[in-house]
Amino acid sequence: MKHFTSVKDVQDIDALVAQALLYKQQPALHSNLGTAKRIGLLFMNPSMRTRISTQVAARNLGMDTIVFNLDKEGWQLELDDDIVMNGTSVEHIRDAAPVLGSYFDILCVRTFPQLLDRDADYSEVLLSKLIAYSGIPIVSLESATLHPLQSLADVITISEHWQEKRKPRVVLTWAPHIKPLPHCVANSFSEWINGWGHAEFVITHPKGYELDEKYTQDASITYDQEAALQEADFVYVKNWSSYHNYGKVLSDGDGWMLTQNRLSVTNNAKIMHCLPVRRNLELSAEVLDGANSIVTQQAANRVWAAQAVLSQILNH
Amino acid sequence: MKHFTSVKDVQDIDALVAQALLYKQQPALHSNLGTAKRIGLLFMNPSMRTRISTQVAARNLGMDTIVFNLDKEGWQLELDDDIVMNGTSVEHIRDAAPVLGSYFDILCVRTFPQLLDRDADYSEVLLSKLIAYSGIPIVSLESATLHPLQSLADVITISEHWQEKRKPRVVLTWAPHIKPLPHCVANSFSEWINGWGHAEFVITHPKGYELDEKYTQDASITYDQEAALQEADFVYVKNWSSYHNYGKVLSDGDGWMLTQNRLSVTNNAKIMHCLPVRRNLELSAEVLDGANSIVTQQAANRVWAAQAVLSQILNH
Amino acid sequence: MKHFTSVKDVQDIDALVAQALLYKQQPALHSNLGTAKRIGLLFMNPSMRTRISTQVAARNLGMDTIVFNLDKEGWQLELDDDIVMNGTSVEHIRDAAPVLGSYFDILCVRTFPQLLDRDADYSEVLLSKLIAYSGIPIVSLESATLHPLQSLADVITISEHWQEKRKPRVVLTWAPHIKPLPHCVANSFSEWINGWGHAEFVITHPKGYELDEKYTQDASITYDQEAALQEADFVYVKNWSSYHNYGKVLSDGDGWMLTQNRLSVTNNAKIMHCLPVRRNLELSAEVLDGANSIVTQQAANRVWAAQAVLSQILNH
Repeated sequence: MKHFTSVKDVQDIDALVAQALLYKQQPALHSNLGTAKRIGLLFMNPSMRTRISTQVAARNLGMDTIVFNLDKEGWQLELDDDIVMNGTSVEHIRDAAPVLGSYFDILCVRTFPQLLDRDADYSEVLLSKLIAYSGIPIVSLESATLHPLQSLADVITISEHWQEKRKPRVVLTWAPHIKPLPHCVANSFSEWINGWGHAEFVITHPKGYELDEKYTQDASITYDQEAALQEADFVYVKNWSSYHNYGKVLSDGDGWMLTQNRLSVTNNAKIMHCLPVRRNLELSAEVLDGANSIVTQQAANRVWAAQAVLSQILNH
Repeated sequence: MKHFTSVKDVQDIDALVAQALLYKQQPALHSNLGTAKRIGLLFMNPSMRTRISTQVAARNLGMDTIVFNLDKEGWQLELDDDIVMNGTSVEHIRDAAPVLGSYFDILCVRTFPQLLDRDADYSEVLLSKLIAYSGIPIVSLESATLHPLQSLADVITISEHWQEKRKPRVVLTWAPHIKPLPHCVANSFSEWINGWGHAEFVITHPKGYELDEKYTQDASITYDQEAALQEADFVYVKNWSSYHNYGKVLSDGDGWMLTQNRLSVTNNAKIMHCLPVRRNLELSAEVLDGANSIVTQQAANRVWAAQAVLSQILNH
Repeated sequence: MKHFTSVKDVQDIDALVAQALLYKQQPALHSNLGTAKRIGLLFMNPSMRTRISTQVAARNLGMDTIVFNLDKEGWQLELDDDIVMNGTSVEHIRDAAPVLGSYFDILCVRTFPQLLDRDADYSEVLLSKLIAYSGIPIVSLESATLHPLQSLADVITISEHWQEKRKPRVVLTWAPHIKPLPHCVANSFSEWINGWGHAEFVITHPKGYELDEKYTQDASITYDQEAALQEADFVYVKNWSSYHNYGKVLSDGDGWMLTQNRLSVTNNAKIMHCLPVRRNLELSAEVLDGANSIVTQQAANRVWAAQAVLSQILNH
């Protein structure tokens, strides 16, 4: 693996999951792999789990880590190639990227979509320019459209909690929120579950919240949450804004909050969420604090997901 | 010691002070004690001494440190268990705490009081929920009501500067400030001096600034600063807002600034302050820059205080 | 070298450049020199290259690094000795400096000028008080008037790209910008090129942008950019505001942007800029992306400049 920005960068998902689970057992297994290597973590947006888990993973591999909050400690990057820079952006990505490439061995970056212009967001211009101009491996810490380290952790978590021979029924259900959120977790989870191929994948959401078919592919999609939840083994709860009516919140989502009662039709399903979660809005507290919630393990697995990815890049 | 949020967590103050003074002589004495252990420093509020000294202490013990400014790099935590999270808070402490507990071996946290609702502040809900839900040792880097790492450094500093057999007379004097400050340094110093038991403890402040008796216990309390300063061996200068008229500034404090002239009645007292200090408002520059000021040593001792505490937790 | 705030702190520039180029070949050459030493990086202002390159340099020498954004994670420092601190500044430099001196072995600091009061900016009060009160070596990460780590990297970069026996013609040309910028890069580059003594030094700018003669000394100064560029071997592009009409932007700088066409009169000159650069305002994109641009190498050399300086301080 050279870069890690999507499931498409992964040759063998099963092997990557196995590597992550090995690190979970033996965090210090390759504690010298990254000796004298330096990783930069570049943030344009807030982060807690991703920020900390990636640092932990890099340290477990013996790498030196430097965190840089570009939005707060630096300045606004310009991405437009033809611009006369007489506005608010202070530095062009074409100038910043090769410099960062000279300081680091691996560069990780988090950026969010604006949710105003779909083509702009979906072109992932920051990631693609970092890849083009930095000269070093680029790892997405969540981009405008995808969140692959989260999705890898999600697949690891499902793997750990599933021992049966049959494929688990994995349901991604939309949940209410008070503001328009990116599609990246839902897109990315869809892309990974499809790529992984070891699940029966169902997506449910209100009409108008259809995701980009590039990611959902031949998942079963229904507007009927109750039907979707029938016999579910895993229920992944997440809000997203509209893709087709780009970035819009189409309704208050009344009746879509996942409650214990609603889960009664599932096969004693495990409950997942990428966190942070809005309690009693996306999910009832009862469900989150219940025995079937695996959100903490899912977040804890972020370390092993990142460690497996960094390890593969270092071994490239 | 499992957690460290108050003097009550300490079994033997004298032993803890001795351990700190040993580290002051030999910072690298236990430089492998924390190998492969990771400490998180979580800030909801600004910090300089505490932030840096705790990192230094952890590094001296061989620990890996990760600083996280939750207020700036993350988002607002929700502490209310029954809320529907449709407001500004993004994540509930019940969800964040166990995740942080999975990433770290020890979690340190700084939070300030709002100074609006005494019961809310004095319930220390953030600390108690972190203890309840993180599953790992929690260290206070200053909380709504106490500042135990500061107080331990204070006791260390007094110990170092006192060789006589008799108990030193230690005077905590209120000082003017331009804005309402928390009670935590004064509460905590009182709690520690009382718990330590090796001082004659006097508190002086204008009427209305009485601290919570839970902390002051049987300290001698007077509104007469001059009387309090008589024969003082150590004078600790600090502002705090009213406890009974909660969070209020009751007067401009005219006449309470500690000056060289006022110190003439003391027993050549050493002058202490936790810093940051407002020069020529709380204390005259003349006193701060004078030979009897030990504020720098006091701040420097923050490292050894933190190192002794972390060491005891690691050895637990 | 004890402190590093100006070229005047350097005994032998050639030796320092040679040391830096040695580290460029062997980054880990002295990877234990800084063992058990701790460096603090104190920022009052944004920084990318300086922030990261200095951390990398310190880590290459085995030092422990702690970054502290005083402006964001701490509070406003007071520099005025006679003030009654009843305003917005929270801590006096006289109190903070010795405490920082107790936590660190070397303290690096970045501060910018206000560009309102020339005497205030040019007195470099923050640096001088840190030197006076911290008790440890102070390294400038860019100050109100100078940027010596940048200038050392600039001299290193010119050295690397010049093999001829004759002195290269080095031209510092003013460039347009949308806002008033400090003089520090231009002052500092002038001071270093003059101190280095191995170049024919020319400065060109519009009338009114004369720099402080203390730094330019006997450089050749002209208002005619085209004349200056004739036979140039290196062209350093940089904006600065007026020194004599302090901090003012005197014109829109029309016609001063460096373009490929304008470079035709040079001796195939290498193009330098300290970055960040405003594309198509200071320099055309064509020049920046052209074969003669060495801005990335120049920024990459920041690591070796910092490593050479820290090494000399550690060896002091």
